[in-house]
Amino acid sequence: MAVRLLLDESAKGVYIISATPFTDAGEIDFDSTDRLIDFYVDSGVHGVTILGVMGEAPKLSAEESIAFSERVLKRVAGRIPVVVGVSSTGNLNLKRLTDKVMALGAAGVMVSPIGGLRTDEQIEAYFGSVVRDLGPQVPIVLQDYPQLTQVYMSSALVNRLFAQFPSLKMFKHEDVPGLRKLTQLRAAEARGERRRVSILVGNSGMFLPMELHRGADGAMTGVAYPEMLVRVCEKFFAGDSGGAEDVYDAFLPIVRYENQPGIGLAIRKEILRRRGIIKSAAVRAPGARLDADDLKELDGLVGRLERKLAALDLPLAQPKLRRTG
Amino acid sequence: MAVRLLLDESAKGVYIISATPFTDAGEIDFDSTDRLIDFYVDSGVHGVTILGVMGEAPKLSAEESIAFSERVLKRVAGRIPVVVGVSSTGNLNLKRLTDKVMALGAAGVMVSPIGGLRTDEQIEAYFGSVVRDLGPQVPIVLQDYPQLTQVYMSSALVNRLFAQFPSLKMFKHEDVPGLRKLTQLRAAEARGERRRVSILVGNSGMFLPMELHRGADGAMTGVAYPEMLVRVCEKFFAGDSGGAEDVYDAFLPIVRYENQPGIGLAIRKEILRRRGIIKSAAVRAPGARLDADDLKELDGLVGRLERKLAALDLPLAQPKLRRTG
Amino acid sequence: MAVRLLLDESAKGVYIISATPFTDAGEIDFDSTDRLIDFYVDSGVHGVTILGVMGEAPKLSAEESIAFSERVLKRVAGRIPVVVGVSSTGNLNLKRLTDKVMALGAAGVMVSPIGGLRTDEQIEAYFGSVVRDLGPQVPIVLQDYPQLTQVYMSSALVNRLFAQFPSLKMFKHEDVPGLRKLTQLRAAEARGERRRVSILVGNSGMFLPMELHRGADGAMTGVAYPEMLVRVCEKFFAGDSGGAEDVYDAFLPIVRYENQPGIGLAIRKEILRRRGIIKSAAVRAPGARLDADDLKELDGLVGRLERKLAALDLPLAQPKLRRTG
Amino acid sequence: MAVRLLLDESAKGVYIISATPFTDAGEIDFDSTDRLIDFYVDSGVHGVTILGVMGEAPKLSAEESIAFSERVLKRVAGRIPVVVGVSSTGNLNLKRLTDKVMALGAAGVMVSPIGGLRTDEQIEAYFGSVVRDLGPQVPIVLQDYPQLTQVYMSSALVNRLFAQFPSLKMFKHEDVPGLRKLTQLRAAEARGERRRVSILVGNSGMFLPMELHRGADGAMTGVAYPEMLVRVCEKFFAGDSGGAEDVYDAFLPIVRYENQPGIGLAIRKEILRRRGIIKSAAVRAPGARLDADDLKELDGLVGRLERKLAALDLPLAQPKLRRTG
Repeated sequence: MAVRLLLDESAKGVYIISATPFTDAGEIDFDSTDRLIDFYVDSGVHGVTILGVMGEAPKLSAEESIAFSERVLKRVAGRIPVVVGVSSTGNLNLKRLTDKVMALGAAGVMVSPIGGLRTDEQIEAYFGSVVRDLGPQVPIVLQDYPQLTQVYMSSALVNRLFAQFPSLKMFKHEDVPGLRKLTQLRAAEARGERRRVSILVGNSGMFLPMELHRGADGAMTGVAYPEMLVRVCEKFFAGDSGGAEDVYDAFLPIVRYENQPGIGLAIRKEILRRRGIIKSAAVRAPGARLDADDLKELDGLVGRLERKLAALDLPLAQPKLRRTG
Repeated sequence: MAVRLLLDESAKGVYIISATPFTDAGEIDFDSTDRLIDFYVDSGVHGVTILGVMGEAPKLSAEESIAFSERVLKRVAGRIPVVVGVSSTGNLNLKRLTDKVMALGAAGVMVSPIGGLRTDEQIEAYFGSVVRDLGPQVPIVLQDYPQLTQVYMSSALVNRLFAQFPSLKMFKHEDVPGLRKLTQLRAAEARGERRRVSILVGNSGMFLPMELHRGADGAMTGVAYPEMLVRVCEKFFAGDSGGAEDVYDAFLPIVRYENQPGIGLAIRKEILRRRGIIKSAAVRAPGARLDADDLKELDGLVGRLERKLAALDLPLAQPKLRRTG
Repeated sequence: MAVRLLLDESAKGVYIISATPFTDAGEIDFDSTDRLIDFYVDSGVHGVTILGVMGEAPKLSAEESIAFSERVLKRVAGRIPVVVGVSSTGNLNLKRLTDKVMALGAAGVMVSPIGGLRTDEQIEAYFGSVVRDLGPQVPIVLQDYPQLTQVYMSSALVNRLFAQFPSLKMFKHEDVPGLRKLTQLRAAEARGERRRVSILVGNSGMFLPMELHRGADGAMTGVAYPEMLVRVCEKFFAGDSGGAEDVYDAFLPIVRYENQPGIGLAIRKEILRRRGIIKSAAVRAPGARLDADDLKELDGLVGRLERKLAALDLPLAQPKLRRTG
Repeated sequence: MAVRLLLDESAKGVYIISATPFTDAGEIDFDSTDRLIDFYVDSGVHGVTILGVMGEAPKLSAEESIAFSERVLKRVAGRIPVVVGVSSTGNLNLKRLTDKVMALGAAGVMVSPIGGLRTDEQIEAYFGSVVRDLGPQVPIVLQDYPQLTQVYMSSALVNRLFAQFPSLKMFKHEDVPGLRKLTQLRAAEARGERRRVSILVGNSGMFLPMELHRGADGAMTGVAYPEMLVRVCEKFFAGDSGGAEDVYDAFLPIVRYENQPGIGLAIRKEILRRRGIIKSAAVRAPGARLDADDLKELDGLVGRLERKLAALDLPLAQPKLRRTG
């Protein structure tokens, strides 16, 4: 048995947000899950996050969530840390899932505030209750995704939350505009107001190069080209920020296409399918589906990307066809 | 075995929205559930709706939802129809719960649109997918509660939905302002544009007397005084609309207090506890709790209500202390 | 020339929110304005607030806003303080109107946060800029009406705002649920954390009796029966809280009818028209209009109110037919 | 006197959304306005739209709006059509500004729905009232920008609006995701359901190449590099869609930076200032301001853009230093 991986404040690099592969009939496709996990690990990511929005978590049953977590954790086999999204409208359900996945070997859980929280007071009280209910030993990623939740957290509030709750280890930063907020969070640490925490950025990494400059430790997002995120971070942390941005800019046209709200998940699953990683691009209902126009448009974008990468001598990762299941 | 009760377009009267009683520790309290169900039936309601917002459905596990439904259906024992709220972020989970509760004897299910639906087109597509997934034999209550869902349906859209989908049997009307909408829905029926459907109103019945005048068939809401709703409807349908409004106005001060968003559920559970019906007023986290000021305020309102009812010679229903469990 | 009335923290009682009367053609009706102002003063209100939401301020031109303010201030002639709503999407326009109306004799201005403010930090920065731009000599009413603005202020934030900015004199409290917030604001004062400020409640006074118990100094709202607000406050502050609630409850059915979002303004103008105070119930476009069903419904509610008041021996104020213009 | 330019359904190309230049003290800078207008015309744009969101219209007084419109129209002197944003919370103010600017020579006005419209019925009623109030002779651009207004229009609704109201000439398309919507709008025309109308896209042109493929006639947006929009459209309509996309992709990193909500306007004004076109980057309060980190970040992005353009032999337009004022 591998040493237990537990998330802490030093987490860095790329935590890819995993899709949940389905068969065309809509059941979880565990074989594709194995291939997807191997592909992510082979792409060089430093962690994987399952059951996020991109993982269609709100459309799984509790049993499916646990079965999928178990399969992923078994396949990862301790190679990289696995974070599990456990956000829920009720604290008890949130705790039930957390207890299960931590027992299965998760490195931590990700929690997004419930909808309807409006003020700093309410948000602070909510996370206080979650931290207390989960217990101090469970590492938590605090997700800040106001475009979806309509819950807005100022940097002052985020600072207070991390200062107060030691089990909060990582901040998943997805506010837009969010660049100044990132700077403010790091400034609070520089002033010694609280310990340094891990900050990974989301939003498809639409602002990744600037966010790295402003102090992000990497990205936690679900783009269909994880190797891009890995290379950008590697180059940046090796001191080649210009090279990082060159790689990034080559992918930006398709990143911005993937980043469309609503339909983005279907686009990503289709790219993963085309890359031979998952068998079906099926999205559970309710969910957007690509039509013939979308598919043709994607052909064009992927073609342009491949030509650009060839010119830059930047080959894409190839999924290895290991036996799964 | 009793004759199967299935909801149809002729439904009328009061469908009380049931609380889900918890112990102080937060587990479902099945004994209180039995007492609560008996109390509702004894109050003269014509149906009961479980697992709505008022029933804290989003904070139950799937197993709890089924166990609670089973207990309620067993206790009701065919005396009145039971509607089960099955709204879900995923169609598959929505169908799974529906299939279970219909097999257990539910009269129909209630479905509220998922968040994020913005246009008539999107809402129509969503209900089309739900109706198709559930199958034509499952009677559906269409819930229109935009204050919570941020999904807004015009009367034209509601008319189209009912015209298109025969398994939609009842409209739960909670839009505010909503009086003209109600009139428009009945006008479409009068013009023969679609069949007449059942319309019950929610929102604590804050506009019940006007809504009855405008064509509502009754109320589906969760006030802690179901006997008030019953009497108002009885008097109104017996032709005594002035008498109906007199009863209503006596309760309005407390109805408006219960109707506060967020804290209303805690208030209702506390009243039910004081009335000896449920053992604990516990609300699952996250949820508002009453403090000393709230409790004292409630003392005052309840006292005023009781004095008013005494003056009007309108006794409250008394819960009968049958054996439960 | 009368002594200049300037709003301060001791303000108490009823500040009625004034409608802006229009002719049927949609022009400001200055004769009706005079009658309306006299009616308000005769009803015993302690102040009047013009150019609020109820005053259709966003549909007036800057010239009309100034002309209307001038007419009102001239007619009031120092009898009671006049507050002017000056909320604006731009600080410069806010200041321009403020300077004009203060020069004309207003007692202070009311400012609501602009839309789009999400966090405590943003709201604090906004009011900081407004207070600085208007200058320390202009008394400000801080309006907290999240149902309309989608800007939510916690009690902690409100406390910080009043502690920081001495020119904030009054809090117009309209959050729902808001009872606990009121208690928290007064508790902060009791703990000596900041000076005591005036708190008047809005929202049609839907919770006025409880709000008075929790420390409100009165109401600032626009119901069409200002004499009700005056009597409730007078009785309450004279120690007869039961009597206050009796008066209040008699009006509650119509208050809850007026309080409907969107259409409420048209209802209030129609009642004022029926009472002989304004000549036309016209609302500027875009705005809801009453139809035949609404008018008939209003007949019923007004009839019931009048019978109840007769039984309670509570006559309504009669507009005096002074010469206007 | 030049022939009057009136907007019609054949409008095509780039309508740049103009900033409103201010002095550091916040007054309208008319000299910079002249330079800006000349720069736009020299960049090859086919029209200009003033007093949009980008033009800080809600922070101008009515007098300033008219004075600015007059100055722009005089400087343009009939070289290209000028559209004026006239959206307003009240129809009367909307009409007043429209009448003024049409008399001054505007080619048409742009109208965005007021906030709070929720259903197709409400939106249709609103535009019906606006079209009627403005009269049939005023060409209208229908702006669809739900991210800001929270008013969502389906393609079915947009089709109905254009079919019903002949004075609607152009659709400013800014919904996201919006690609399929664009296809649906053109499909309705291909089926002959209504006349073909002009569709220009907004949102910084973040999806411009795909939108042109799907039938857009060009762009109406406010990026600080109008020459990019012009070249992309020219190449695309000349049949070189690959070349159009090459130009576009070179600018995408900075377009995505400009496109940040809230702070985007300040970024654009700073770029225009650096390019020597406007004298001050001042934004009226309330409004985001760039800090030292932002400015340094912008240095980097602009530097990268200039190197890329040099490599592609794509020189930027140079503002000509004509006499202004």
